[in-house]
Amino acid sequence: MLIDRTALADLALGAAFLGSGGGGDPYYGQLLGEAELARRGAVELIALDTLADDALVVPCGWIGAPTVSVEKLPSGREAVAGLRRLEQIFGRPIDAVMPIEIGGGNGLAPLFAAAQLDVPVVDCDGMGRAFPESQMAIFNIRGLSSCPSVLTAACGALTVIETDDNLTHERVARALSVALGGIAHMVEYPLTGRQAKDHAIGGSLSAAIAIGAAIREARERGDDPFAALCSALRRSGLYPHAGLLFDGKIVDLERETRGGFSIGRVAIESFNGQSRMDLEFQNENLIARRDGAVVALVPDLITVMDRETADSITTERLKYGQRVKVVGSAAPPMLREARALAFVGPAAFGFTETYRPIEQLNAWDDL
Amino acid sequence: MLIDRTALADLALGAAFLGSGGGGDPYYGQLLGEAELARRGAVELIALDTLADDALVVPCGWIGAPTVSVEKLPSGREAVAGLRRLEQIFGRPIDAVMPIEIGGGNGLAPLFAAAQLDVPVVDCDGMGRAFPESQMAIFNIRGLSSCPSVLTAACGALTVIETDDNLTHERVARALSVALGGIAHMVEYPLTGRQAKDHAIGGSLSAAIAIGAAIREARERGDDPFAALCSALRRSGLYPHAGLLFDGKIVDLERETRGGFSIGRVAIESFNGQSRMDLEFQNENLIARRDGAVVALVPDLITVMDRETADSITTERLKYGQRVKVVGSAAPPMLREARALAFVGPAAFGFTETYRPIEQLNAWDDL
Repeated sequence: MLIDRTALADLALGAAFLGSGGGGDPYYGQLLGEAELARRGAVELIALDTLADDALVVPCGWIGAPTVSVEKLPSGREAVAGLRRLEQIFGRPIDAVMPIEIGGGNGLAPLFAAAQLDVPVVDCDGMGRAFPESQMAIFNIRGLSSCPSVLTAACGALTVIETDDNLTHERVARALSVALGGIAHMVEYPLTGRQAKDHAIGGSLSAAIAIGAAIREARERGDDPFAALCSALRRSGLYPHAGLLFDGKIVDLERETRGGFSIGRVAIESFNGQSRMDLEFQNENLIARRDGAVVALVPDLITVMDRETADSITTERLKYGQRVKVVGSAAPPMLREARALAFVGPAAFGFTETYRPIEQLNAWDDL
Repeated sequence: MLIDRTALADLALGAAFLGSGGGGDPYYGQLLGEAELARRGAVELIALDTLADDALVVPCGWIGAPTVSVEKLPSGREAVAGLRRLEQIFGRPIDAVMPIEIGGGNGLAPLFAAAQLDVPVVDCDGMGRAFPESQMAIFNIRGLSSCPSVLTAACGALTVIETDDNLTHERVARALSVALGGIAHMVEYPLTGRQAKDHAIGGSLSAAIAIGAAIREARERGDDPFAALCSALRRSGLYPHAGLLFDGKIVDLERETRGGFSIGRVAIESFNGQSRMDLEFQNENLIARRDGAVVALVPDLITVMDRETADSITTERLKYGQRVKVVGSAAPPMLREARALAFVGPAAFGFTETYRPIEQLNAWDDL
């Protein structure tokens, strides 16, 4: 399919939800994408299984604290500079790009790069949502190397990172993003077509578009966008359970930018004052407690949304007094495997709670 | 000339003095160098003016906090990995290596690399002493680019840095050194032979050997090694004034490892308790005050030495109770030009004092 202006807007809506509060606000990505589409025409979205085994497929996205991305704008040359350098390292052209994470602004980042390089975007991603750290990508979970990786900044600085250890890569890239002003573009986990087909989370980009379209169409029809969202999530196959976790008003918020992340917690109170939800986040919302009881745990998705517009509110956009609904969704099945939970389950974020699937913690109609 | 085991030991002694307290303790560099010389034979030291204009000459050395280098040993593969990668980037072999700074362990670092690559070391360096930051190299002062630069760590991680801005390069490299455990090897400011001849500080490596030899020979003869040191400094041409700044015992010491540097201050009291010297350092000793009056200012050299052995004591080796002599020396003339003082004078380190040459602040016999 071709990603035109409407699909781009839908993708921005859907990716914002799938960000689970992180991945950066998609708004700038949408504006950049619109400008690029206007200049170069629609971008082609290709299915994962159409890739040749020996294709060179490159995940891209931004690394840094979303709080910074709101104020420090990209130069627009970061992605191409990084991808061209990777082509130089491999001595061959890149065949396609893909989002390292479908969630948030990073779900849109490769469209911009694809338009500039005139290559297609693959309908997949490396996280099925957004995660704060690079080694949380499915490709690390499945034992692939993140390197060679190229990090580029708005100032023009370019850094090639090579290490056998994906955790060292994350540590180095994080330090670089901080040194370069808090945010940088990164291409990482360069894949063969075979590796992408075996390990990427397929269909997530078209799922994000469909989810966004469902919200948009419900708004146009005057229907409940939350019902439409949950229904679209379930229909996608990737997110088989979804439902409302809470409805209320933000009554407390702590947030700081530390070590290259937005870290904090937010409290939401029900309108009758009888119930309360507490969320903790590291870029993304990681755990939801309702009146003290855990009702959702990473890697399942927890997204705070404007209760009128159903716009997703990224963690750096949370504000005291916002009236919100919190929507939860099951993570894609690949993220719930035992080997994945070791990297993206509660323990990976320092929580002592054992992972339990969101559909077991909530009495939703879709069960 | 050939650098054999004796010359290496003399170089370690001389470089330690020229480190002005920084550049890392040369002891490990000496051990590594000895092992490499034993394996591969002597390393050739060539004069700066013998370089072909189109030669590829690469400065190398370690970046990080000397406090860390004392405990975290190199793998021994860092320099070669970085230099080989630079050859790949330039598509040609390296013709010679040189120390980015002659002071401290970094004065010896390229010998090890030269032996492994079987190329000569050029008799010059980029600082004429040691400085804590990369942009303090004469090559930045003279407008040359530090990039492409390759940073390698003991764990095997390799990073290529490319930026037009040498300050960004320093910031990025510093962050990397911290992320990689506090110390890393760096090749930077790759030069043509012409650039090296025009801008490097020529003769500093043989000067360091001569200075070390003077100390060693005075010890062997039972003469005063401090007198021999000062005389050798003056004879070198690069360090035309030198003398004793203080004699006493360390009575106070503050030192912390912060932002990738060893930062602190040390107080030394005369044995009669009547006089006191205060030094401030950022890896290197930067300012010396005697009874409150400034008697030496960066870029002039200030080195604390064991008053019995005349061994130089790097800032990370300073200890309460040490009995020391503090020796000062004029910096090489290239560092005293107005354009150089902007980068390596007192203001570059946040001091409000205006630079005054050490020979004007002290009544030395050699004046």
